[in-house]
Amino acid sequence: MTNCELLIIGQEIITGRIIDTNSAFLAKKLFTLGIALTRITTISDEKEIIETSLKETLNRSDLVITSGGLGPTPDDKTMAVAAKIFKARLILDDSLLAQIEKYYSRINKKMPEALTRQALVPQGAIVLENPIGIAPGLILKQGNKVLILLPGVPLELEKIFVTGVIPYLETSFSLNPIFTRTIRTTNITEAEIFEKISRCFAHNKAVAVAYLPQTCGVDIVIWTDKDKKLLTACEKEVVLILKPYVYGFDTTNIEEVVGQILKKQDLTLATAESCTAGLVADRITNVPGSSEYFVGGVVAYSNNIKKLVCGVKHETLKKFGAVSKETVIEMAIGIRENYKTDIGLSVSGICGPSGGTKEKPVGLVYLGIALRGAVKYEERIFSGNRRLIKEQSAMAALDLLRRTLLIDKNDRR
Amino acid sequence: MTNCELLIIGQEIITGRIIDTNSAFLAKKLFTLGIALTRITTISDEKEIIETSLKETLNRSDLVITSGGLGPTPDDKTMAVAAKIFKARLILDDSLLAQIEKYYSRINKKMPEALTRQALVPQGAIVLENPIGIAPGLILKQGNKVLILLPGVPLELEKIFVTGVIPYLETSFSLNPIFTRTIRTTNITEAEIFEKISRCFAHNKAVAVAYLPQTCGVDIVIWTDKDKKLLTACEKEVVLILKPYVYGFDTTNIEEVVGQILKKQDLTLATAESCTAGLVADRITNVPGSSEYFVGGVVAYSNNIKKLVCGVKHETLKKFGAVSKETVIEMAIGIRENYKTDIGLSVSGICGPSGGTKEKPVGLVYLGIALRGAVKYEERIFSGNRRLIKEQSAMAALDLLRRTLLIDKNDRR
Repeated sequence: MTNCELLIIGQEIITGRIIDTNSAFLAKKLFTLGIALTRITTISDEKEIIETSLKETLNRSDLVITSGGLGPTPDDKTMAVAAKIFKARLILDDSLLAQIEKYYSRINKKMPEALTRQALVPQGAIVLENPIGIAPGLILKQGNKVLILLPGVPLELEKIFVTGVIPYLETSFSLNPIFTRTIRTTNITEAEIFEKISRCFAHNKAVAVAYLPQTCGVDIVIWTDKDKKLLTACEKEVVLILKPYVYGFDTTNIEEVVGQILKKQDLTLATAESCTAGLVADRITNVPGSSEYFVGGVVAYSNNIKKLVCGVKHETLKKFGAVSKETVIEMAIGIRENYKTDIGLSVSGICGPSGGTKEKPVGLVYLGIALRGAVKYEERIFSGNRRLIKEQSAMAALDLLRRTLLIDKNDRR
Repeated sequence: MTNCELLIIGQEIITGRIIDTNSAFLAKKLFTLGIALTRITTISDEKEIIETSLKETLNRSDLVITSGGLGPTPDDKTMAVAAKIFKARLILDDSLLAQIEKYYSRINKKMPEALTRQALVPQGAIVLENPIGIAPGLILKQGNKVLILLPGVPLELEKIFVTGVIPYLETSFSLNPIFTRTIRTTNITEAEIFEKISRCFAHNKAVAVAYLPQTCGVDIVIWTDKDKKLLTACEKEVVLILKPYVYGFDTTNIEEVVGQILKKQDLTLATAESCTAGLVADRITNVPGSSEYFVGGVVAYSNNIKKLVCGVKHETLKKFGAVSKETVIEMAIGIRENYKTDIGLSVSGICGPSGGTKEKPVGLVYLGIALRGAVKYEERIFSGNRRLIKEQSAMAALDLLRRTLLIDKNDRR
């Protein structure tokens, strides 16, 4: 297994002005490639510090990947330091210069003369094209030491890594890739999951597991460096046990899952949201093409709007309150009728910090769904601050929709 | 100035399963305290690696802060390694044990016997109470070397740092705090800002500046280790030049700014959103107490809903299209009338990836606002993917609202 280190360079990171997401991206990719990442070092962009750290990491590891300090301004010093360490002189790369000129003509601007500097690269380096910006990726090799320099802008680093670095690593190292799968769950705790599925890994010793609690659910990551079939078998076993709680795999979001089902079943949807105030609609419409099944919704924040737009009865609000099963049921039925859709989905709850009582505490949320003739509701209690309760409520509404679509499918036929 | 290093410990970080936010939090706090952070090292939770790295960091720096590996499970090894390095034996801390027992009684559970282990601390260590969880913070001192151990759960680390670590650092080190201020702008590029305000720093040499471009605007961070008055004078100068673009300071969001103005001017608001699909309403309602001025809104995703709920005329949609100044104007007027509010705010645009034409490309967005008798609109073009265009559109709508409220205030009297 190849040992690797990351060197993250940037004043804005070491002073806490931005959160470094590059190392998590690179760590995840390296893990899947079967390359052992042993250390991530984050430093400022001072020349001496870059030089010391680069030497240290190259002494310890065969593969070092850096992020940052490759741009055209004076505080970009990574390449000069790397060239010095590898004793390579800087030469003008004509094809890189042409790429930079092309970049400027694409955005209808003339390339500043000073930017010619950006086309200087250490002699012997492999230049990796940057399809978005102007700072290229660079690969330097000396003996069995490989140094890969990447720009710090996350989107640029990610593109170059996928198009340039991965192919290089796959051909230059004998990698033993790791097969990995993420099983995404909601509405069940980490402890409950552990209790239900730990036995799956007792007889599948070649498959490892990690539990990752998120705000709105728990992701179960399983992996093996042996056989992909082992992973698939283990995944099937886990999904069978946790079925109603599993909403998707890998990086799929619940709004994508729900969108696919709605499209397949040819159903339309409208939302009536009180406490989530548009977050459910916002998430649904993050999916390209969602206008095929989502017609719109109401943010019924005040009681007046609940009556006016969703047709919630005055007596219902008076007798049971805005946060009640009766209200979400009327909201779901009302929005479905008014917006002429197959489904009406509703949420009403108390996100706090104030507004809670002993009977109806902060975090109490009701969800309603009307699908043609059928109506149902769910009561949930969430903890956390205002934003976290909103996020969990929106997730719960989307999951109620998902489960209803799957369960009711046969009944409706 | 005291030199400091961070050591971030965790298998889940070095394999890229979670993004480390602790180091950004700590880096920012240390910067403000006037402590120079020179290096952040991230490693896995193997005992030998923790020991080597801890020794290295303590050799280089007088102050080392670690995150992670303090819990009660077998993969939590930080404390044992620290005790070994400081040659301190582990002793049972009675008051810590009492805190842990109290924690369990608070959540109505019996403390598991094995958790007594969590109350073992290195002899001589200062124990910092964890107000949320069970793993405490610990301060170990030997000669002029200080080692501070903090749990890895972000909320717990943050609480302990603020309540326990900062007071300790302030009394134990002679700190020269840095005064810092963030000026938040939108609707103006980094290059334009630089051109307009760089002269402010030519004659204010004791004040430093950094530009932080975000998705929806540019944050300008200014700081000095000299006199707070210098900072305030510089801030005034910058704000005077950039006035219409400055929406807030430090960590204030635009939805908070807008909320304060609406409350002060005693105005109510309703939203009609097409492409942002609830994101504007979602952001407005992230502010506690927003129900005082926000009554609700419509997500008018389909043209039918635009006609049905916002009163957009069939001819308007036919002649000018859903993404046009005519449509957002009718949406703003319509939602204001239907929801009986002082203000109607509307958005319609093309977030892509498909749906763009040569005349109306992806990223084209119209914003409308109706404030009592007056109506106006703005046309904007954004770049980025679907989500980024949604976020920039929502920000632009909130900023249009902000500017309208400030400018029209006098006219309306």
